[in-house]
Amino acid sequence: MTERYLALVLHAPTDLRLTVRELEGIDPGQVLVRVGMGGICGSDLHYFHQGGFGAIRIREPMALGHEVAGTVAAVAPDVDAVQVGDRVAVNPSLPCGSCRYCLEGWPNQCLDMRYFGSAMRNPHVQGAFRKLLVCEARQCAKVAPGISLSLAALAEPFSVALHAVARAGSLLGKRVLVSGCGPIGAMVVAAARLHGAAEIIATDVVDEPLAVVRAMGADTTINVATAADWTQRYAAEKGQIDAMFECSGNERALRSGLETMRPRGVLVQLGLGGDVSVPQNLIVAKELLVMGSFRFHAEFALAVQLINARRVDLSPVITRAFAMDQAVQAFALASDRKRAMKVLIDFEAEAGAGARTAAQAGDPA
Amino acid sequence: MTERYLALVLHAPTDLRLTVRELEGIDPGQVLVRVGMGGICGSDLHYFHQGGFGAIRIREPMALGHEVAGTVAAVAPDVDAVQVGDRVAVNPSLPCGSCRYCLEGWPNQCLDMRYFGSAMRNPHVQGAFRKLLVCEARQCAKVAPGISLSLAALAEPFSVALHAVARAGSLLGKRVLVSGCGPIGAMVVAAARLHGAAEIIATDVVDEPLAVVRAMGADTTINVATAADWTQRYAAEKGQIDAMFECSGNERALRSGLETMRPRGVLVQLGLGGDVSVPQNLIVAKELLVMGSFRFHAEFALAVQLINARRVDLSPVITRAFAMDQAVQAFALASDRKRAMKVLIDFEAEAGAGARTAAQAGDPA
Amino acid sequence: MTERYLALVLHAPTDLRLTVRELEGIDPGQVLVRVGMGGICGSDLHYFHQGGFGAIRIREPMALGHEVAGTVAAVAPDVDAVQVGDRVAVNPSLPCGSCRYCLEGWPNQCLDMRYFGSAMRNPHVQGAFRKLLVCEARQCAKVAPGISLSLAALAEPFSVALHAVARAGSLLGKRVLVSGCGPIGAMVVAAARLHGAAEIIATDVVDEPLAVVRAMGADTTINVATAADWTQRYAAEKGQIDAMFECSGNERALRSGLETMRPRGVLVQLGLGGDVSVPQNLIVAKELLVMGSFRFHAEFALAVQLINARRVDLSPVITRAFAMDQAVQAFALASDRKRAMKVLIDFEAEAGAGARTAAQAGDPA
Amino acid sequence: MTERYLALVLHAPTDLRLTVRELEGIDPGQVLVRVGMGGICGSDLHYFHQGGFGAIRIREPMALGHEVAGTVAAVAPDVDAVQVGDRVAVNPSLPCGSCRYCLEGWPNQCLDMRYFGSAMRNPHVQGAFRKLLVCEARQCAKVAPGISLSLAALAEPFSVALHAVARAGSLLGKRVLVSGCGPIGAMVVAAARLHGAAEIIATDVVDEPLAVVRAMGADTTINVATAADWTQRYAAEKGQIDAMFECSGNERALRSGLETMRPRGVLVQLGLGGDVSVPQNLIVAKELLVMGSFRFHAEFALAVQLINARRVDLSPVITRAFAMDQAVQAFALASDRKRAMKVLIDFEAEAGAGARTAAQAGDPA
Repeated sequence: MTERYLALVLHAPTDLRLTVRELEGIDPGQVLVRVGMGGICGSDLHYFHQGGFGAIRIREPMALGHEVAGTVAAVAPDVDAVQVGDRVAVNPSLPCGSCRYCLEGWPNQCLDMRYFGSAMRNPHVQGAFRKLLVCEARQCAKVAPGISLSLAALAEPFSVALHAVARAGSLLGKRVLVSGCGPIGAMVVAAARLHGAAEIIATDVVDEPLAVVRAMGADTTINVATAADWTQRYAAEKGQIDAMFECSGNERALRSGLETMRPRGVLVQLGLGGDVSVPQNLIVAKELLVMGSFRFHAEFALAVQLINARRVDLSPVITRAFAMDQAVQAFALASDRKRAMKVLIDFEAEAGAGARTAAQAGDPA
Repeated sequence: MTERYLALVLHAPTDLRLTVRELEGIDPGQVLVRVGMGGICGSDLHYFHQGGFGAIRIREPMALGHEVAGTVAAVAPDVDAVQVGDRVAVNPSLPCGSCRYCLEGWPNQCLDMRYFGSAMRNPHVQGAFRKLLVCEARQCAKVAPGISLSLAALAEPFSVALHAVARAGSLLGKRVLVSGCGPIGAMVVAAARLHGAAEIIATDVVDEPLAVVRAMGADTTINVATAADWTQRYAAEKGQIDAMFECSGNERALRSGLETMRPRGVLVQLGLGGDVSVPQNLIVAKELLVMGSFRFHAEFALAVQLINARRVDLSPVITRAFAMDQAVQAFALASDRKRAMKVLIDFEAEAGAGARTAAQAGDPA
Repeated sequence: MTERYLALVLHAPTDLRLTVRELEGIDPGQVLVRVGMGGICGSDLHYFHQGGFGAIRIREPMALGHEVAGTVAAVAPDVDAVQVGDRVAVNPSLPCGSCRYCLEGWPNQCLDMRYFGSAMRNPHVQGAFRKLLVCEARQCAKVAPGISLSLAALAEPFSVALHAVARAGSLLGKRVLVSGCGPIGAMVVAAARLHGAAEIIATDVVDEPLAVVRAMGADTTINVATAADWTQRYAAEKGQIDAMFECSGNERALRSGLETMRPRGVLVQLGLGGDVSVPQNLIVAKELLVMGSFRFHAEFALAVQLINARRVDLSPVITRAFAMDQAVQAFALASDRKRAMKVLIDFEAEAGAGARTAAQAGDPA
Repeated sequence: MTERYLALVLHAPTDLRLTVRELEGIDPGQVLVRVGMGGICGSDLHYFHQGGFGAIRIREPMALGHEVAGTVAAVAPDVDAVQVGDRVAVNPSLPCGSCRYCLEGWPNQCLDMRYFGSAMRNPHVQGAFRKLLVCEARQCAKVAPGISLSLAALAEPFSVALHAVARAGSLLGKRVLVSGCGPIGAMVVAAARLHGAAEIIATDVVDEPLAVVRAMGADTTINVATAADWTQRYAAEKGQIDAMFECSGNERALRSGLETMRPRGVLVQLGLGGDVSVPQNLIVAKELLVMGSFRFHAEFALAVQLINARRVDLSPVITRAFAMDQAVQAFALASDRKRAMKVLIDFEAEAGAGARTAAQAGDPA
């Protein structure tokens, strides 16, 4: 098996190339997936524009991407969980299964994690933006008939959102604030709705994503760049917000939200943002509960199950799909929060085919 | 009843006066306590030196003090929970019992709290540093024979510590870090030990309080002002500390501690310190749980019970007691972390009697 | 105010009479409600048929009923939360607000509870099946325009279901078993769906209610009287059920369910059934979590909110409404699980008007 | 390596033989332990007297025993966690580390558990009552200098107790009831004390073990066979017991305890007892939380740590040690609750040496 395939490889900031790679073979337990659709994530954009984030930097050419779905093209002889022809969403995380945290039930904290398209390890774990992808069979979750690969490719960011709402505990009857309405914030809105939230308020500094989260289930949206004194609406009795999901990584969003939270409220922090200044006395006096939420584990299977059963409709977040040879345009669009939410790469579109509309991208493959 | 008594009243920063006040009578449900011992708290020092903290400032003369124990001198006719002659620790908090938070079981978040010696309300709630104090019978907890009023006066800060360890959930078998070894930090060490902690590490920037917390049960003490790279000892596998109690309000203590915490570790913040810069990405990536802890409620009865049963020995925190007319010296000593931990006012000592030694102060009254 | 009104009063088992009573006046904080619709509950049936249950027996004539909705006819001068003309669901529980459990946040465990139509206290608390009802303003929750009083009268049993699912913690992604598909079981199905359950299996020994719970959101229904070895479907890996809600009070239902539960699974017991034989070793070896769930508190407001917002459709449980003078027929029908789920009394229907169909009963008033 | 050693092998009920076995070699990761002391557990007694319990029966000769400590005699070349000469307590449980429950952090629920001296699997896992034992290095926990092997052999039952108190959550300030004062009940008393319990009440139907649990830290002991109406002492306000640990498996103990439990109280069931009749309505109405507790996992290391640090003194439970050739007498004594609590086998005592006193057995080896 010396098949060759194309991959989207980042060589340096903004230097993203269509590169020919060679397939290395399928080990026991593994499958070969012909990638269909892949979503561009915020971390892909960080690699693309700055070459990484914080201390994590690309030190060698690395294929990007970790939100993909495709069709099984081959399986190792010992695999029977999936078959050739199955359409699957691919879980990009591969915890070791034997470290301290894996054995404590927190594989997302694995000490030896392999995650597609991540420069945390050296050599890097190559990403999934490529025509052919070898992965473990257990990384594959079957996509139901009639569900498009575009929707299936959203399973990963939706898993992140489900993990965050699971962290917060029951939301039944709770008033929820979501700050930052990028793809993750939008999916947190959907997940909170599924998890029983009674009222969902979403904030952003740009109007366009707020329209999307309304379609995802937000009851109230607030452009905090223009709304004066919006926190006053939720300030009575020390605060009216039961649970907050901070998806922006923005200091001001965090501080404003803390003002609106009720005593003993829960804040789940998903957004990454470096050092932020926090009003410690407010956390103490209201006995707030602040918890980080990072990636996911069991939630990936749940995400695919909910998408398959159409118990959630994530299509409002999809902006457009681009053919593989237009990846640079795709990354440019994905970087513009006023025009784009989730931009996809269509690995099966012919080169030069041009972009398909969101509606087309959403069609069952 | 027009009895007069002396109180320690703050008129302006550092202007603390022995003032004669007039007793106003005892309503149904109330008792009159002849105050014996009172501990000077950090908030008393803030009022004394700066006139308050944050937005809270004294706007009228206010008696200080909220950590007191004494002897019941009179009771309203309808009171039978305590009797004249009973020695009692006085719970300085009086939640309303009818607001939203009181009815949700969190009276420490009461929307209409009355707390001795607090300028949060206007008019202020006068403090308990006075010879005679009228309070509700339900604020009194009986002190066992043989337990000194000095120890009983520690029930309030010990309640704060018990509330914090209760917030953290079970500590059984956990490795615990306590940062900031003032009286509250020292009592958190004792409370964590009672609550099953397997190993307690305590840090401060001064050596003297570290000696005290060793006597309170700390296994390891670290002067982080002089210990180089101390966090490296606890850095393996993303962090080795299961639970941290931040009692300093100091940004550096918080940030160092976060580095040593294991994924999913619990940080209870007790120290007050204004705005602090926090490494948000670390909280997210390790999925830390940060929670504020504020005052106490049911823990006051527990604190007195544990002191009464001698299941905890808090005497190492007591530095010295001063007669009421030497209050200014008492406040000066209490402000010096190298020389003092908990300084007491002895309301029964004769004027001009001079200070009693810690040992004397600790004697059963 | 010496207005008279009709009430449905039980004098002895099966001796239910239309009785004229005299209105006693409205105290401060109270309102007068013209009752519109009332649902017959299982406890009403126990009083009607056996005069009570367990040690609780009627010892004096008692109006039945506690699931009612109506229209505000008068308010005390100090009331402004509701106004004359408001349509309201009435919370039948009135905790004291000052006992130990009220102040710990568990008013449903109140030591001095007043609950409409309950013989627990002597004299009994008279029930709400009457044309005019005086209650505290805080017992009233406004019903939204377009929502029928029939649906509003379901707020109480739905509160019971919401309390139970809240007890179980997050159901997000969980496989849930509901045993016993009476009105409470049916509403637990709806509540579990709202709370994020991934898959809901419902069991009963009669087919008819199983059809109703499918309409309420159950994915799978099993008639365990006829299905052979049904527990085997969920027996793999020690058990496949994450959470079980036992709504039948039946020993066999409980024991079968325990066999299907996974290690560390949660069983919420709502059904009342006297002494039951339990396989203790199974609870120990699988470390199951069994918890009782009793009544509700904050969930009443949530129930009305969810009904008002049409986030849940409870109409499938409504069988039929009867005029007040046909109450005995109503109780007879309500006692027949093959023909009835929730039977209503229509307090505004003319005497002798005959029963309205379920569809009519469901019409917005 | 064809060394031979003696083992205590059960061939049929009461047919316990000293049998010569042959050592099979040490695989990578393993160590050879020269067993010093072993405690007789209730399950050993069940095998001895009845050949098993419930559906679990010995089907082939099986060495008994799983509570042992000894000295490392050899290690595989790749082992460096322990060395020849180390004194160790041996954790008898060996979860697979790769099944669903192991990866969820609950290895005590492992689907492929190997546990010394258990007939659950076929062929059975041979027990640890033998002169030489091969186990995984990770099953060994080092015993501190000065700690006897007798105390070290108690690490396993103490782990069971620690697991149970950890299940119950924080006991700080709680009133605790322990029913059934065999070795497990006695160790639960010690563990609850370590975990912060404010008051511990222990019950049994025999006086002798009650004397032992007083030495372990119980504040109050009650012989419920002779104390009339003892539950009335704890009946006020629906019940006064915050947490109950049921260690007897006895129906009457369970039912009496439930009467004394406060609303929302926690009952941890450790005792095994087959079918028991439970007052379901009481569990529902008081919303009790009943949870099984089975074996342990991380608690084994904690048990050894606490024993090593002398933070707990378990010596009161030790009755006597017998030489290996007197095992039948040892089992007879262990079966008599009036005369014995924990009976040990001393594998290093010379044959015919006779029993050593408890004091001798407790001496540092």
